[in-house]
Amino acid sequence: MEKTVSAESLWSDLEKIRKISPLVHNITNYVAMNSTANILLALGASPVMAHAREEAAEMASIAQSLVVNIGTLGPLWVAGMLKAANAAKRKSIPAVLDPVGAGATKYRTQTALRLMKTGAFSAIRGNASEIMALGGAKAATKGVDAAHQPEQAFECAQKLAAETGAVIVVSGAVDLIVRKDRAARIYNGHPLMAKVTAMGCAATAVTGAFLAVNPDAFSACANAMALMGICGEIAARDCAGPGAFQSAFIDAVYNLKQRDIKMRRG
Amino acid sequence: MEKTVSAESLWSDLEKIRKISPLVHNITNYVAMNSTANILLALGASPVMAHAREEAAEMASIAQSLVVNIGTLGPLWVAGMLKAANAAKRKSIPAVLDPVGAGATKYRTQTALRLMKTGAFSAIRGNASEIMALGGAKAATKGVDAAHQPEQAFECAQKLAAETGAVIVVSGAVDLIVRKDRAARIYNGHPLMAKVTAMGCAATAVTGAFLAVNPDAFSACANAMALMGICGEIAARDCAGPGAFQSAFIDAVYNLKQRDIKMRRG
Amino acid sequence: MEKTVSAESLWSDLEKIRKISPLVHNITNYVAMNSTANILLALGASPVMAHAREEAAEMASIAQSLVVNIGTLGPLWVAGMLKAANAAKRKSIPAVLDPVGAGATKYRTQTALRLMKTGAFSAIRGNASEIMALGGAKAATKGVDAAHQPEQAFECAQKLAAETGAVIVVSGAVDLIVRKDRAARIYNGHPLMAKVTAMGCAATAVTGAFLAVNPDAFSACANAMALMGICGEIAARDCAGPGAFQSAFIDAVYNLKQRDIKMRRG
Repeated sequence: MEKTVSAESLWSDLEKIRKISPLVHNITNYVAMNSTANILLALGASPVMAHAREEAAEMASIAQSLVVNIGTLGPLWVAGMLKAANAAKRKSIPAVLDPVGAGATKYRTQTALRLMKTGAFSAIRGNASEIMALGGAKAATKGVDAAHQPEQAFECAQKLAAETGAVIVVSGAVDLIVRKDRAARIYNGHPLMAKVTAMGCAATAVTGAFLAVNPDAFSACANAMALMGICGEIAARDCAGPGAFQSAFIDAVYNLKQRDIKMRRG
Repeated sequence: MEKTVSAESLWSDLEKIRKISPLVHNITNYVAMNSTANILLALGASPVMAHAREEAAEMASIAQSLVVNIGTLGPLWVAGMLKAANAAKRKSIPAVLDPVGAGATKYRTQTALRLMKTGAFSAIRGNASEIMALGGAKAATKGVDAAHQPEQAFECAQKLAAETGAVIVVSGAVDLIVRKDRAARIYNGHPLMAKVTAMGCAATAVTGAFLAVNPDAFSACANAMALMGICGEIAARDCAGPGAFQSAFIDAVYNLKQRDIKMRRG
Repeated sequence: MEKTVSAESLWSDLEKIRKISPLVHNITNYVAMNSTANILLALGASPVMAHAREEAAEMASIAQSLVVNIGTLGPLWVAGMLKAANAAKRKSIPAVLDPVGAGATKYRTQTALRLMKTGAFSAIRGNASEIMALGGAKAATKGVDAAHQPEQAFECAQKLAAETGAVIVVSGAVDLIVRKDRAARIYNGHPLMAKVTAMGCAATAVTGAFLAVNPDAFSACANAMALMGICGEIAARDCAGPGAFQSAFIDAVYNLKQRDIKMRRG
């Protein structure tokens, strides 16, 4: 594993987030809103949710990063997402896209591609099926849960990275971080994470917070995914099930210390 | 109690849900979305939320069941609900309706009736006041909480069942399951369930998961309500209050074993 | 501290809420909906969420109080908020406004002022930055988190109170309750409350419940804020972090006894 995804780099980013408390502007889905806000607060960031066309650009302009997630999209929301993305691009505010359910319906695939083409996003995080759908593979997504493993999406991720210049994150049991010329894998995590809704959405929002403090998008993405995985492992200890896991995860993020950061090597 | 609502039937359905992980398409309210998704995941199902007219029919068509809940309705959402219901009917995908707040406002009553008349729903679950409102009784609903007991709604439920061919579930301290020619009661449950928001919505979503694996709607409804009640009883043990109950309930669903399934007989 | 914000007054209001279970109509944001509903249920109130223009006035008319929160606003929602506010005013139903993010974008500031001008609101609760923005101060809000302390908003709160006749609540480490001719401070609370999303929104909703049983808006606001602070202190005991705090807070509200009500004096 490269130095940019080291424990030192993660800790350094986390300290910055806790110190600066970056304003992270989220246009995200109804399922994820509450847990996303709580995980960002536990991380030390300052989340704001604002989707309306009437204010999306203005809010994105005062934020340190933008998170766009199409999990429960509709036409008015897509309009706000486009306005926010364009504002972020104009102001060079880092942005991350979560193409939830791309491949499951035409509307989701097309909206994700349309957002991607704004050129605003320096990172795109999805599961394998979503990334394959955006990369043009004829992959059937089953709703919003992945029907594929990250490694099956490797070529699509590379293709997307080359087309967009963005870092592509394919999350799963082992997360893939892919840039045009580079790839890394994050081995941290726990199976209970897949049993709690919106953990993928949380990973995208956390990536937004890391992008706000780390100008190297590849490193920011890797650190965000490693933090998610490490906190998932901590939360899963002595845990009765996904209900208890949820609050334990938030507490793990809130209490994370440098000595807790142990990156797994596969 | 009849064989179709036996512990054996419930366990058999639950094993199927855990094995098949049916895709349950939810168009539900903002309050319930997160907890509904988490309870469906804990159950072993694969939830997806998608409300927009632009994709509701397509999403319903790839699902194993559809859940429509009018808890926080608006015109664009109702349009999506109708599209999803019609698609489910065309494709013979089982569907369940939750008429939240029917009787409280004209808009809710009329929307519930309009959805009901699509003929898409093989099950309708509500509290006594809601079922009475749909059955034409002059019953005052107090917001979204019931002002009546299930037995007071028995005749309305029978009338609705005869009119629609659907199984009518009236939930309360003792749940009523009513079909044209048949009725059953579920005695499991705990008073704390009424102190947590969206537990009724969760019951409807869980019914959706059971409908996905059990072609007998009466049995599916009874098993879903029994599972809710049993998990409520388990979660309430050593529980400080409704806050702790929420995550204990999710863990009870996730960990439910055959030996835990004890149906009460009143 | 005045008698109206005494432990006796708080307990008397709480007993009434638990006995009457007032219907509290909320038009609130997506982030806060679930936790708001659960906190109102734990308090003993009966929450209902309904935002659509098609039913907002009718729902407000059958409620015992109205809570309007602009946390995730959009044009259709603002239309519903105005209808509900006007209906509440016509029927003399007490109402409270939460101007989330006023000052962060023009849309939020203008919408909050527009709602305020309906004259429907007997209470307005915000953080210091929001109240300063409504009071005309050139204060920069950072998203939805306060960039100022309540005392910095004192003059703006007095000005707003004089203009509107409403009680102005400025929440923070020490909460300010301000009326034209009067002010009080609530010293209860815990820093973890700022680490959980929508605790401010919950304070506004709880204020709605107190307004439903206490015709003295100043006293209702003070009691609501004291209850929040006291329950925050109880919940924070032996608490691993903001995740555990959330459910502990709900349980503290649910279990609050007269002997637990100890108002701090700074």
